[in-house]
Amino acid sequence: MKKIGIREVAKEAEVSPTTVSRVLNNRGYISEETKNKVFDAMNKLEYYPNELARALFKNETYTVGLIFPTITNPFHAELIQSIEFELSNKGYKVLLCNSLNNPTKEKEYLAMLRKNQVDGIIVGTHNKDIDDYNIPGLPIVAIDRNLGKNTVTVSCDNYTGGEIATQLLVSHGCRNILCIRGDSKIKLPANSRTLAYKNIMKENNLDPLILEVPFVAEIKDKKKMIGEYLETHPNIDGIFAGDDLLATLAINSLIYMRKNVPEDVKVVGFDGAEQTLIYNSDLTTIQQPIGQISSVAVHKLLNMIGGKEEKDELDLPVRLLKNHTA
Amino acid sequence: MKKIGIREVAKEAEVSPTTVSRVLNNRGYISEETKNKVFDAMNKLEYYPNELARALFKNETYTVGLIFPTITNPFHAELIQSIEFELSNKGYKVLLCNSLNNPTKEKEYLAMLRKNQVDGIIVGTHNKDIDDYNIPGLPIVAIDRNLGKNTVTVSCDNYTGGEIATQLLVSHGCRNILCIRGDSKIKLPANSRTLAYKNIMKENNLDPLILEVPFVAEIKDKKKMIGEYLETHPNIDGIFAGDDLLATLAINSLIYMRKNVPEDVKVVGFDGAEQTLIYNSDLTTIQQPIGQISSVAVHKLLNMIGGKEEKDELDLPVRLLKNHTA
Repeated sequence: MKKIGIREVAKEAEVSPTTVSRVLNNRGYISEETKNKVFDAMNKLEYYPNELARALFKNETYTVGLIFPTITNPFHAELIQSIEFELSNKGYKVLLCNSLNNPTKEKEYLAMLRKNQVDGIIVGTHNKDIDDYNIPGLPIVAIDRNLGKNTVTVSCDNYTGGEIATQLLVSHGCRNILCIRGDSKIKLPANSRTLAYKNIMKENNLDPLILEVPFVAEIKDKKKMIGEYLETHPNIDGIFAGDDLLATLAINSLIYMRKNVPEDVKVVGFDGAEQTLIYNSDLTTIQQPIGQISSVAVHKLLNMIGGKEEKDELDLPVRLLKNHTA
Repeated sequence: MKKIGIREVAKEAEVSPTTVSRVLNNRGYISEETKNKVFDAMNKLEYYPNELARALFKNETYTVGLIFPTITNPFHAELIQSIEFELSNKGYKVLLCNSLNNPTKEKEYLAMLRKNQVDGIIVGTHNKDIDDYNIPGLPIVAIDRNLGKNTVTVSCDNYTGGEIATQLLVSHGCRNILCIRGDSKIKLPANSRTLAYKNIMKENNLDPLILEVPFVAEIKDKKKMIGEYLETHPNIDGIFAGDDLLATLAINSLIYMRKNVPEDVKVVGFDGAEQTLIYNSDLTTIQQPIGQISSVAVHKLLNMIGGKEEKDELDLPVRLLKNHTA
């Protein structure tokens, strides 16, 4: 049997061998029609060059690992989808790792990604400091997380987001404003949201009220903590929530307590993912620029893979989505 | 410099070489504490065996490709998370591919997965028939999709789901019940939902009313189609939607038209993902057993990778989640 190669595929697809090579390596513009002809010819001739051998030989895998706590949160899902789309357009594939906020699982995944020689990693988890990310020579971009000196951080302008949210609640007459946030002990760019909240409260001679809900808690536990806090603090008239899940859990608790939103209590969330707003179109929230965050993260990672130095980018613009809850 | 191997890692971690080997290959039970000791030792000694070389040598990659249209739909997100969790527990890693319902992108991904020698594929896309899935020797499991004779299909009991939903609307007095569904031209197990709807309508001497909304349409276009249909059919008093996104878009249109749900129009969705129900806790829906679907899909795929024959499983149990919209 004659060995099948690029020439045979090109002949079958009625294109040049260069075109087949470009389709295989995802380089340059090629029309959908031509791509389909090449894929159909490859399929017919059962030609699939072994990418593993190439990767081993060239010491580059065109693979990027993504470590995220969960993909079921719409903000993470949209971020991951956008990152995967951008990487795929550049010829990179994605190994997906859901750490489920378990530090051991996170270490396991990191070891797995290193064993599989990924070219780089994008991390969006919330566990306490894991030293393992300090890997000279392996480019790592962290989204909204500080992972140490060898990694680069990308985040939205968290401080401005916190300012806009708190200012909105104050301007609507709220005086007892609760800030629901993640663990304060973990160093995150998102901590600036609470700092902004405290500063605006101080400027207005109001006392800050902060409820910490651990990132790693299960949803039902988060719900319980928020419900109990609101039951025992009936004077709360405004809530700035650290994300839209916390905002929604707070709204659900308030409805259960027969309070009206926004009449009795105004609520502002954070993230503004498209899916969240379809299912809860009432939610007033601070929207993160998901597309921009993923573009910048991918751009920096690919530059780092190419040997360039990169710096943190912590000021991607947020905007207020004014709906009905505040 | 002395070459680092399993023995050196074992000595550093103060465990046996067998334990290190079991951690590396993810075999047998090992405590989190021991795992952490091994990972810390590997990290300290910078020991990461090259998995690519092993994969090339053994002709197995312990990699499974996932091709899904999008991960931003909560049902898909929870399914993918659950599949990735199950596979990761069995020592498999996941290459994630978002086809975005683009057939060319789907072919590209399939070619990429074959070039990278994946051991198997789980597919959950909705494109029209793509012959490329007919690959002898490559195990493929399709979730709620028929892909041809070499693949195995896993789905919930769609017929019963359609029966329960339509029966509920009829029993609540609805007479003009609209069924919103995906493209009827694509052969899918989910088509049984519409069949059940038609049969229940016929049994009750009611005329079926069906609106087809293409799977591949963008959300804003789906919203427009549903809104226009409801505006021009003001007598609709019940809606059975093919998924919770379609149900939510219908509810949003009805609210915009100043109709009350469930007083004027009752709505039942399909899927019942956890995140959807947090953001829209009012939704009455038919819940799919996401955990069971992913377990069965992974179990069958691993059996097929192991050389066993597998059959379709199309009757995983659904249940009615009775909330406020119907």
